[in-house]
Amino acid sequence: MKDLRIGIDIGGTNTEFGIVNSEGRIIARDKIPTEISDNFDEYAKILADSINMMILSADASERILGVGIGAPAINPRKGVIEGATDLPWNGILPIKAGLENLLNLPISLINDANAAAAGEFLFGAAKGIENFIMLTLGTGVGAGIMTDGHLLSGRNGYAGELGHTQVPDAEGRICSCGRKDCLQTYASASGVVATARNLLESSSEPSLLRNYPADALSPKIIAEAAMKNDPIALQTWRLTGKWIGKACDSFATFSDPEAIFFFGGVAKGWPLFKDALVEEYHRHALHLYKELKFIPTSIADADAAILGAAAAVD
Amino acid sequence: MKDLRIGIDIGGTNTEFGIVNSEGRIIARDKIPTEISDNFDEYAKILADSINMMILSADASERILGVGIGAPAINPRKGVIEGATDLPWNGILPIKAGLENLLNLPISLINDANAAAAGEFLFGAAKGIENFIMLTLGTGVGAGIMTDGHLLSGRNGYAGELGHTQVPDAEGRICSCGRKDCLQTYASASGVVATARNLLESSSEPSLLRNYPADALSPKIIAEAAMKNDPIALQTWRLTGKWIGKACDSFATFSDPEAIFFFGGVAKGWPLFKDALVEEYHRHALHLYKELKFIPTSIADADAAILGAAAAVD
Repeated sequence: MKDLRIGIDIGGTNTEFGIVNSEGRIIARDKIPTEISDNFDEYAKILADSINMMILSADASERILGVGIGAPAINPRKGVIEGATDLPWNGILPIKAGLENLLNLPISLINDANAAAAGEFLFGAAKGIENFIMLTLGTGVGAGIMTDGHLLSGRNGYAGELGHTQVPDAEGRICSCGRKDCLQTYASASGVVATARNLLESSSEPSLLRNYPADALSPKIIAEAAMKNDPIALQTWRLTGKWIGKACDSFATFSDPEAIFFFGGVAKGWPLFKDALVEEYHRHALHLYKELKFIPTSIADADAAILGAAAAVD
Repeated sequence: MKDLRIGIDIGGTNTEFGIVNSEGRIIARDKIPTEISDNFDEYAKILADSINMMILSADASERILGVGIGAPAINPRKGVIEGATDLPWNGILPIKAGLENLLNLPISLINDANAAAAGEFLFGAAKGIENFIMLTLGTGVGAGIMTDGHLLSGRNGYAGELGHTQVPDAEGRICSCGRKDCLQTYASASGVVATARNLLESSSEPSLLRNYPADALSPKIIAEAAMKNDPIALQTWRLTGKWIGKACDSFATFSDPEAIFFFGGVAKGWPLFKDALVEEYHRHALHLYKELKFIPTSIADADAAILGAAAAVD
């Protein structure tokens, strides 16, 4: 009986992989350094050998449905990784065809935000929710959009770039894409830090955050200060929630989701920005969408990348 | 061989219906006054009789796949019309169950914007385009969203309320929903008229539009004046295009469509607002979405409602 999926997460430092059962438990896992070879074919060979070893040790060779792979700059349509700046190989890397040959298993590729959505849908709190949005709040802001039980792809696979929707009536921040007031400039890690810096500069109120050099601030530090009732840190998170809440208003009109989930480093500030988010959302939302729920991811950090990749397997 | 669909459009004045072949040609059509009875059951009986008559006359009884119905305030999930203010009956009207019994054919319900999208997809210029948005610009502004070949519905069937997305950096108009700068306040018929009125009031420039009482203006009159090179009318359409172009920027980030189509009374001004729309879109759009096409509907007015309803048949 085929009931197990393999998830592979190719990161800049390590490539992690695991065997996931149908309940979303990782029953075996391992990793190799992504830089183990600067020749991609050799890397793929070592990776495949390590995975085959894991399958053998787990006595699982008859039970694997397929393999899902998450990686930076992955193109699920073409089956390749292309132009990834954080990986040791250049050019267009035929990861799907390569590993399919080496593993003799069907391979599915998935981008980070869709992996988070698929993982939550198959193994997490989104089980049974056919319409939801997974907002990933990290270095950048992205989204995986589940519509009527189907992960939205779009013409070229670029659906869900919700980090680049404009937050209405915001501060006029310029995004790395050159456009103004993209959600990413407020809800990414650097966006949250920018909010704190702006608050620090525009007042002389005492704050724990003043103990750090400006370039040492992070969402984690700001969250810790907020837990100690630091007023500027608290206000940073309230503003973050407010901007996300405004953005969610227009997301709702598009796909009428039942819930919006939150994932990623910034989402760890959830208890600190939730109230402001919900309040601002309800200040704006159309009556049709008042029942929308906001939910932090249920999947543990250490498992998320492998589970998300595994969830790409049909 | 079943190759024909019936489309029924229940309007405030008339109920029109027709038999549509697989090429999108209406091979038979008829209508009854919607107010023919203020008893809904009696109305349904008369409608069913008229449709059966049409089927018989066309010798089509063996060839009908099913029946699609478009109507105001239709709820495809529940199979009812509820709370329609423009129809002669009150309460919750079980249109699906009622006509299924009377016609002995499968019935599908569809809302206006989705009907326009489905009609274009099955019979019009969107044939073969699996990812597109149909913007309907009329009394209100709505949208039907085709994603990966699937008409997006959402949790409660309220996906695609794009008339209530906020146009960034617009004039601050208040929408009937109570919110600010909804696209509907700029791109609906009354939105276009409001734009013209604002321009007339804020200058003393001569204009053909000054010959009309303020409450007699319409998109049609403004389009006619623009065709005569009236500067205020031309500027009205340019601004309309600009606001729609700004809104399309955020629509693209959501579903990565190949094209956005335009339908409805205001869309008749297409040649007058197209250039401003495209220019503004490209001023804002993320590089990923630069190939997005903008296309006016290909379906004739007189056929659109019947074709759209017929396209709801699976």
